[in-house]
Amino acid sequence: MFYHEPELQYEVEVEEPNPYFAKMLQQAIGGVEGEMRVALQYMFQSFAVPSDKPEYRHLLMETAAEELGHIEMLATAVTKNLEGAPEHLREEARENDAVIDAMMRGGQPRQALSAGLHAMPVDSNGVPFSGNYVVASGNLAADMYANVMAESTGRLLATRLYEMTDDAGMKDMLSYLIARDTMHQNQWLAVLEALEDHVPVPASFPQEKENQEYNYTFMSTFRERHEDPEMPWTSGESFDGKSEFSFGYQPGGGMPSVEKTIEEMHNEATDR
Amino acid sequence: MFYHEPELQYEVEVEEPNPYFAKMLQQAIGGVEGEMRVALQYMFQSFAVPSDKPEYRHLLMETAAEELGHIEMLATAVTKNLEGAPEHLREEARENDAVIDAMMRGGQPRQALSAGLHAMPVDSNGVPFSGNYVVASGNLAADMYANVMAESTGRLLATRLYEMTDDAGMKDMLSYLIARDTMHQNQWLAVLEALEDHVPVPASFPQEKENQEYNYTFMSTFRERHEDPEMPWTSGESFDGKSEFSFGYQPGGGMPSVEKTIEEMHNEATDR
Amino acid sequence: MFYHEPELQYEVEVEEPNPYFAKMLQQAIGGVEGEMRVALQYMFQSFAVPSDKPEYRHLLMETAAEELGHIEMLATAVTKNLEGAPEHLREEARENDAVIDAMMRGGQPRQALSAGLHAMPVDSNGVPFSGNYVVASGNLAADMYANVMAESTGRLLATRLYEMTDDAGMKDMLSYLIARDTMHQNQWLAVLEALEDHVPVPASFPQEKENQEYNYTFMSTFRERHEDPEMPWTSGESFDGKSEFSFGYQPGGGMPSVEKTIEEMHNEATDR
Amino acid sequence: MFYHEPELQYEVEVEEPNPYFAKMLQQAIGGVEGEMRVALQYMFQSFAVPSDKPEYRHLLMETAAEELGHIEMLATAVTKNLEGAPEHLREEARENDAVIDAMMRGGQPRQALSAGLHAMPVDSNGVPFSGNYVVASGNLAADMYANVMAESTGRLLATRLYEMTDDAGMKDMLSYLIARDTMHQNQWLAVLEALEDHVPVPASFPQEKENQEYNYTFMSTFRERHEDPEMPWTSGESFDGKSEFSFGYQPGGGMPSVEKTIEEMHNEATDR
Amino acid sequence: MFYHEPELQYEVEVEEPNPYFAKMLQQAIGGVEGEMRVALQYMFQSFAVPSDKPEYRHLLMETAAEELGHIEMLATAVTKNLEGAPEHLREEARENDAVIDAMMRGGQPRQALSAGLHAMPVDSNGVPFSGNYVVASGNLAADMYANVMAESTGRLLATRLYEMTDDAGMKDMLSYLIARDTMHQNQWLAVLEALEDHVPVPASFPQEKENQEYNYTFMSTFRERHEDPEMPWTSGESFDGKSEFSFGYQPGGGMPSVEKTIEEMHNEATDR
Amino acid sequence: MFYHEPELQYEVEVEEPNPYFAKMLQQAIGGVEGEMRVALQYMFQSFAVPSDKPEYRHLLMETAAEELGHIEMLATAVTKNLEGAPEHLREEARENDAVIDAMMRGGQPRQALSAGLHAMPVDSNGVPFSGNYVVASGNLAADMYANVMAESTGRLLATRLYEMTDDAGMKDMLSYLIARDTMHQNQWLAVLEALEDHVPVPASFPQEKENQEYNYTFMSTFRERHEDPEMPWTSGESFDGKSEFSFGYQPGGGMPSVEKTIEEMHNEATDR
Repeated sequence: MFYHEPELQYEVEVEEPNPYFAKMLQQAIGGVEGEMRVALQYMFQSFAVPSDKPEYRHLLMETAAEELGHIEMLATAVTKNLEGAPEHLREEARENDAVIDAMMRGGQPRQALSAGLHAMPVDSNGVPFSGNYVVASGNLAADMYANVMAESTGRLLATRLYEMTDDAGMKDMLSYLIARDTMHQNQWLAVLEALEDHVPVPASFPQEKENQEYNYTFMSTFRERHEDPEMPWTSGESFDGKSEFSFGYQPGGGMPSVEKTIEEMHNEATDR
Repeated sequence: MFYHEPELQYEVEVEEPNPYFAKMLQQAIGGVEGEMRVALQYMFQSFAVPSDKPEYRHLLMETAAEELGHIEMLATAVTKNLEGAPEHLREEARENDAVIDAMMRGGQPRQALSAGLHAMPVDSNGVPFSGNYVVASGNLAADMYANVMAESTGRLLATRLYEMTDDAGMKDMLSYLIARDTMHQNQWLAVLEALEDHVPVPASFPQEKENQEYNYTFMSTFRERHEDPEMPWTSGESFDGKSEFSFGYQPGGGMPSVEKTIEEMHNEATDR
Repeated sequence: MFYHEPELQYEVEVEEPNPYFAKMLQQAIGGVEGEMRVALQYMFQSFAVPSDKPEYRHLLMETAAEELGHIEMLATAVTKNLEGAPEHLREEARENDAVIDAMMRGGQPRQALSAGLHAMPVDSNGVPFSGNYVVASGNLAADMYANVMAESTGRLLATRLYEMTDDAGMKDMLSYLIARDTMHQNQWLAVLEALEDHVPVPASFPQEKENQEYNYTFMSTFRERHEDPEMPWTSGESFDGKSEFSFGYQPGGGMPSVEKTIEEMHNEATDR
Repeated sequence: MFYHEPELQYEVEVEEPNPYFAKMLQQAIGGVEGEMRVALQYMFQSFAVPSDKPEYRHLLMETAAEELGHIEMLATAVTKNLEGAPEHLREEARENDAVIDAMMRGGQPRQALSAGLHAMPVDSNGVPFSGNYVVASGNLAADMYANVMAESTGRLLATRLYEMTDDAGMKDMLSYLIARDTMHQNQWLAVLEALEDHVPVPASFPQEKENQEYNYTFMSTFRERHEDPEMPWTSGESFDGKSEFSFGYQPGGGMPSVEKTIEEMHNEATDR
Repeated sequence: MFYHEPELQYEVEVEEPNPYFAKMLQQAIGGVEGEMRVALQYMFQSFAVPSDKPEYRHLLMETAAEELGHIEMLATAVTKNLEGAPEHLREEARENDAVIDAMMRGGQPRQALSAGLHAMPVDSNGVPFSGNYVVASGNLAADMYANVMAESTGRLLATRLYEMTDDAGMKDMLSYLIARDTMHQNQWLAVLEALEDHVPVPASFPQEKENQEYNYTFMSTFRERHEDPEMPWTSGESFDGKSEFSFGYQPGGGMPSVEKTIEEMHNEATDR
Repeated sequence: MFYHEPELQYEVEVEEPNPYFAKMLQQAIGGVEGEMRVALQYMFQSFAVPSDKPEYRHLLMETAAEELGHIEMLATAVTKNLEGAPEHLREEARENDAVIDAMMRGGQPRQALSAGLHAMPVDSNGVPFSGNYVVASGNLAADMYANVMAESTGRLLATRLYEMTDDAGMKDMLSYLIARDTMHQNQWLAVLEALEDHVPVPASFPQEKENQEYNYTFMSTFRERHEDPEMPWTSGESFDGKSEFSFGYQPGGGMPSVEKTIEEMHNEATDR
């Protein structure tokens, strides 16, 4: 069950509103690397943890709630960047409204047309958030790798946004979000460390059931066969410590045999 | 530049065709955990590696080419599962065509209606593959975590499919694909090991620019404040070895101040 | 800023797990009439309310937080319906695992394949939640109509689900959710009443700028012209009390004139 | 059965072509607030009205046919805005073709690349129209609220477009479309008035089956409990006249109990 | 400008309602091969034809209006198939409502949950119609090939549906729709014949600007080079009569050189 | 099974990097007319060809492999266009980084934010590639028309891109791709010629089962009935040579009869 407090989680100030930056911020709200994704991802992962593992249920849900607050911060930042445009932008604008002009020229006109100059659950390309961005597999180790990945691309996004703005307010907010991504990467990696011996994921599948000839072989697919380049992934102990890497080629499994399908499908033209 | 050989990468046999299993296999083709995703993901990641790092460009592209062959294997498996239905299924069917009956009752009618009983670039729910499943961030460490995640959820999917079939041919094919996922998890983790000191990703962003107060603090968001539970993510050395985990609460950043937007947006009803 | 409490908002019990009903419940989670939509819709609407109208900001956010709790309840209900299948279902199943069998035959295999028998942010057809379901226009009156609509289709969905189950636990949970939808319809309609004189939305646009000939005329488009049927929308005072309804036909605006586009578009075949 | 007449429904002139405005107009064609949505929505709603209620079937279909004509008008407007660019735009353009330049810089390049400088069934962000925008619930009252909402956000969109252009032709066309939205809001509200006593929707569900404790209570979710603010939605008669509003808090339903799922799902890492 | 007549274009009867067939019919409404696609495709193509070619504008629009009537017929068929279930289906049903049971077991629960047992703008997999199915390129020859393709896959779909039903009413309706697809294939091919000399499309691009070495060569990409198989596409006069087919291999264009991107992108991990 | 060679299929040079053109090129990668679509389309079509027709299986797969190489070329072109901006663009830029500025102003910010200035599997509007672009019907004739259409719109796109750039390197690459599209149009048309007598598609459906009254009649839907315009599609021999074109009107099929649906759907408001 959720609660809200009207204060923001961290302060959000914009010194010089920039409607183009408002568009960029959308990636951190509704983009695949954004806060809606992680908030919902941790939430759905938490829902799937069995009740006898409350430490993981809570860990995931506490961070989900934190991420909901980041959506709120970023939406506030979008509004503040759209509220007005600095004088020098206004001057060079064709019409006397620089914000509307930016909407028309830039690639996110729906911030004006659909949302009245506010944030939306879409990414910076204008594409709506999709439920399929959320990874919640039911397997904790797989989920943790999904989370490290989400926080890695998320922190990367935040640093790129940081580089693109000179606004002190925006830099301060992003420096907070970057810090949180540092923590979140660390916390999910700490869980993986606590799980130990989870590779290959899922660890519960008996490895003797997997094909024993090709489970630790790097498979080269260059047209011209080349020698084992002796890289850390073609020789030496495998990462999971369970075997040795080797180097090889695609085995080849014979020609596929595909029959004609039943007549009612009217695939006829294929067999004249 | 790509080449093809008409042989399959590994043999694909189906002893007893099962149209319901054909539907399940679609997840491994066009699903978010499937082969289209990894083939394209490794391909786009490879395109982004600078030319002076050919070992990573090639590693990614060689595995991309391997995964293209997995799409081919799985598509063959779908066709073979749809080619006919075993006698006992036929008998219990309302009409004398068990396959069409399964199409109508089950959830993937387009395998018949749109594809004439063949594979499609959609998932097992019937939802089309999306380019947004592909993660290729330009940053090798972030990409590697995306790859470990893809192979973790991919192997998890393959083991679940393995448990759902009794067909010896399908079990053999899946045992090969599971083995390859084992290798791929290991190879991407081996790359991460080779990169060292890459956490937090991206490592090139100077950490002194991130907020120093909240970058290693687990942020509890329970409504009722509770004590530090002393978990591996609330105390002790942080995973990246650069600090100590601590335990805290959301800082609070004051009330958000949001102005009225410009008049032309006609947001009037908000201010009566 | 958000907080969470591990207790559910209202109790969720399932007496006889039913994997088919789990699929139906997905509509109330990730469907266009579902809880993810209203939670996010009220949240984004709240973000857009100016700070000098805190009563609306809070009203929207308090209900958003309530709806987040409904996602949690429904996800719990999905898991409980998938945890096992009643004996009589098991007996009629082809294989000895009724749940997996239901996954294969029914239309939501990803609940098993992607989520390990748990809830997902998708609808009952298996289609992922889309950010474009969220309506947050920046105009409070338009938003309130969107909310009444969301709660009307939402309550309709909940009553249909109520009719489809015999499970006492599910009926109790749904009776709670139906009650909340009753309240939410009432509260948004109460806001509209408080706004008064808001039709036509947006009320701030000066009506003298709209075409005065066609703003209160029902436009009949039947091929064979028919007489004014004297319905409440073709005659009498208009709903907004600002004019009289009348009855008429499409005015006709002349033939469209469309030039050839510039040569570089290579639209040539159109002009031979 | 449908018929067409080559004349436009209302005249469409553009005095000074503006490729940026062409992009904005796409929102009114293929956007969630656009004409494709309402045309199809009223059509599908009409299909679902029982034959013994022809007045509603016809009302919906007549307006659907009108909206089809609006798509035609707007598509004509898009083409006319792309046909050429005014001289002053041409001069400031990098290359000597201002239209193509606008395509390259602005956010809707597919108007040139895919459509040869014509309209497309996409929104102003470039996102394709989705069948999931259409609301046709089978319940007339719910559908009417969906229609009022569609015409409210639609009229809001049209007024925002009106504010963004100085072109007399475009202003005239928009003033006609705004007028039609005024009528349509009025006509759907007139239907709701005719239906009376339809709140809460659906009215046919016996209210005694809904939870009696929480169906008229505003549920406060602020972290810090606060007093009843005595707003029109927390006290006094409820909007539907069937009860009194009250003010309260989330009831709390105990800890969710979630079991481990069956072994074949390989969710193992969750229970170490 | 559009008109409607309440009569259907062709009669629609269902002798024995079948909810599973209702699901299949959705493919012909909202699927990529369905009537919404062709209706909108011909409409948008018509919008783009210059006014001095009224014969093509009208041809396209007249057929668009016809296809709108097919949506109406198919939606009526869906409703009639969902109105009730035949007795023998009812008997074998778990509960006493066969239709709801079919909704729960089959793959299109939203026909009940969202639409109250009516048609929806989605396909038979439950996926919503997308504006990106519509092809309207601005070039008439390209559009005509798109139309022949649409009517080919559309007729194929209709024949597959025809084979899947024993219902005399449904067979009669489908036999009408199949006949119309025959006509439409013929009419678009007749336009192509009238255009002559339009291959390669677009014919207005001067062929001397295209690479002269590779414009009529079949490019073999087998890993093992093989001989010219002397097929109608590797030797002899080319289809367009402008050259001779030849047989060859991929030219090879040197190693791609990709630089490091600018520092602010933080792609650092790639260059250790 | 697939192989790769690190060389490009054809050389890719960019003389003057242009970030706006990089955005345009995305249409040729992930757009509906792009290379991902044809590569996957030919691949899935090939999977569906029965083994006793190897000439078609191979033809399709060889061209699929060629198209994969085009994705690689175009992705290289995108990177090269984003690597830097020419001096004169830099000068007029607000900040000293013209590329990032172009990202912010233009409509494809994710090329920077998500991909670190590299190619993505999305179109030029920023919309992700969709599996539903792929047409693989199981019927070879229908597939061939889909392929002619894909190569027609593909070549059209390439010529439009050619017209939009002055860069000699880009023009050379596009002149190669345009040439390949010429060949591919010719090769698919050559297959159709080899199939002969395949219209109407599918030819295996007995035409005597289709409605004999309306299979060769052009159906006029103008509101005002007009005379047969004596066009090549209203009179004379039909394209398939099997009948004569005639000219007529919509037959009319009586009023649709739609019953009330079952009570549990709560569609009540429709019948007051």
